[in-house]
Amino acid sequence: MVLAKKWIYAKAFSGLPTAENFRLEEETVAAIKDNEFLAEAVFLSVDPYMRPYMLQYPVGSVMIGGQIAKVLESKHPKYPVGSFVCGNFGWRTHTVCNPDEGELKPYVLPDFGKEPLSLGLGVLGMPGNTAYFGFLEICKPVVGETVVVSGAAGAVGSLVGQIAKIKGCQVIGIAGTDEKCEWLKSIGFDHTINYKTADIGEELKKAAPKGVDCYFDNVGGKITEIVCGQMNVFGRISVCGTISNYNSEAAKVTDPQRDYVWKQLKQEGFLVYRWKARYMEGIEQNLKWIQEGKLKYHETVTEGFENMPDGFIGMLTGGNTGKAVIKV
Amino acid sequence: MVLAKKWIYAKAFSGLPTAENFRLEEETVAAIKDNEFLAEAVFLSVDPYMRPYMLQYPVGSVMIGGQIAKVLESKHPKYPVGSFVCGNFGWRTHTVCNPDEGELKPYVLPDFGKEPLSLGLGVLGMPGNTAYFGFLEICKPVVGETVVVSGAAGAVGSLVGQIAKIKGCQVIGIAGTDEKCEWLKSIGFDHTINYKTADIGEELKKAAPKGVDCYFDNVGGKITEIVCGQMNVFGRISVCGTISNYNSEAAKVTDPQRDYVWKQLKQEGFLVYRWKARYMEGIEQNLKWIQEGKLKYHETVTEGFENMPDGFIGMLTGGNTGKAVIKV
Repeated sequence: MVLAKKWIYAKAFSGLPTAENFRLEEETVAAIKDNEFLAEAVFLSVDPYMRPYMLQYPVGSVMIGGQIAKVLESKHPKYPVGSFVCGNFGWRTHTVCNPDEGELKPYVLPDFGKEPLSLGLGVLGMPGNTAYFGFLEICKPVVGETVVVSGAAGAVGSLVGQIAKIKGCQVIGIAGTDEKCEWLKSIGFDHTINYKTADIGEELKKAAPKGVDCYFDNVGGKITEIVCGQMNVFGRISVCGTISNYNSEAAKVTDPQRDYVWKQLKQEGFLVYRWKARYMEGIEQNLKWIQEGKLKYHETVTEGFENMPDGFIGMLTGGNTGKAVIKV
Repeated sequence: MVLAKKWIYAKAFSGLPTAENFRLEEETVAAIKDNEFLAEAVFLSVDPYMRPYMLQYPVGSVMIGGQIAKVLESKHPKYPVGSFVCGNFGWRTHTVCNPDEGELKPYVLPDFGKEPLSLGLGVLGMPGNTAYFGFLEICKPVVGETVVVSGAAGAVGSLVGQIAKIKGCQVIGIAGTDEKCEWLKSIGFDHTINYKTADIGEELKKAAPKGVDCYFDNVGGKITEIVCGQMNVFGRISVCGTISNYNSEAAKVTDPQRDYVWKQLKQEGFLVYRWKARYMEGIEQNLKWIQEGKLKYHETVTEGFENMPDGFIGMLTGGNTGKAVIKV
């Protein structure tokens, strides 16, 4: 029988967490059954997402999170004793796990060569993949483009900027101390902005004179508003997190900005002339639908060229149903 | 010599336009040169976009806009006398045009069969194509999904809802009068909400009990906030317009919400587990980049399982650079 420790979510988060929100408990670990293994934590992860995610759990739950653990006992052929696994076991020292149950399966770490095991929680784990997929698949950066990363000195942001450099982009990182900014420059960021001391908008204009093509957003809020104001046409924004409001007292289980991430929503502005090469296709299809009786139209007609302002104002105040036109 | 009329943007828009913003003028029309034609307006368009777009033009400009015009004289082989063209000629009765100049070429209307020419400004023109491409290409609706359209009784919205029905979706339209709502039902909308009299959020919950998959947004503002709160995972939002703030007194040449449309920005929230089938690809690529010296990492390590809350709180307050981990 192993004596294990675990951290309990003792009091609901409100504002910045304090020691009161957590309680350390001991537990005895049960014997493993068929297809289970027992693993002991070696490294545990603390990540920003835990702050808003825990709001979904009742007080008294074990704190959620990933860890790298060593398999001590095993009755599962794919998780042999001595292997190291990455699993979402929560804040606990010992875990009995049936890896075939649950949605996020633990996995045996691949061979990291000379790199430390802890990277399985960082660059070679969830944050690394968040940067790799979340930046490349959503921003689809092109050589020569300008990329802005907020929360740039964090686990994800610092990787996004470097991946953008690998892809041939100009990279601007926004972080909260001069030391972080210096570090970002040392790992290849072209420009950095200390959001706590700089005029972000002015600095960004200087650092990105041609505007911003891709924005990888970890923070939301005011910084995001400023960056969005300097985006170029057909800019792409990958919304990874909204850490700027994670610790607000008002943060609730449902929060519109955070929902945007959690629901993986996609939003796109457009002008119809984007499709000008296919313009006649649209007209022909709509005509066909009209002729087949599948598409109805309504016109609100104002007679007389002299009355054009009236027709315009009427349309702006909702006076029309369907298309507003002026008949000369 | 033809005596023509045109409407001048006489005073800058601020708030809802009034008669004072416009001035009717006469002008004599010059003789046409090679590759030009002279056309006389038959139908002219009034559209919501004109309100914000005009802010970019100096007072004294001719009002912008599309029209259907009949070619009266022509020295261009592709625009013969008697043909009807659709062109962005502005609010004027007569236009001399070299169609090979300028970005948005006028085009001779295709054969509309028995349908009226005015449709070239509506369902068989810019609004029709806005609905066709802007909904299908951005929302990519799937049979059985729930689609919400704001500004649903307008030229674009009324078509979007019907195209959504053609594609096998459940369609909810939001409009501003009971008459508009009745009309929308008569052309096939499954549900309608009168935003001026209903509790939009409550009505939407009833009309879309399984949540909203696609939102075609013509209005922005409060309606959009409510709809976004009821989106499903992987929901798509096509942002066509933000008419709710077009007439605000504060509306300036640059407006963040409108810029989103004009710059055709794309924004997407994500969770990394979307790519769980490719998870090892990310880890392997990041490891390769580390081994090639292209990707640097930094860890902020807190020692001791007992100190896990401190490590967590420190990370939330920006105490870490790179990945924050706990070493047991």
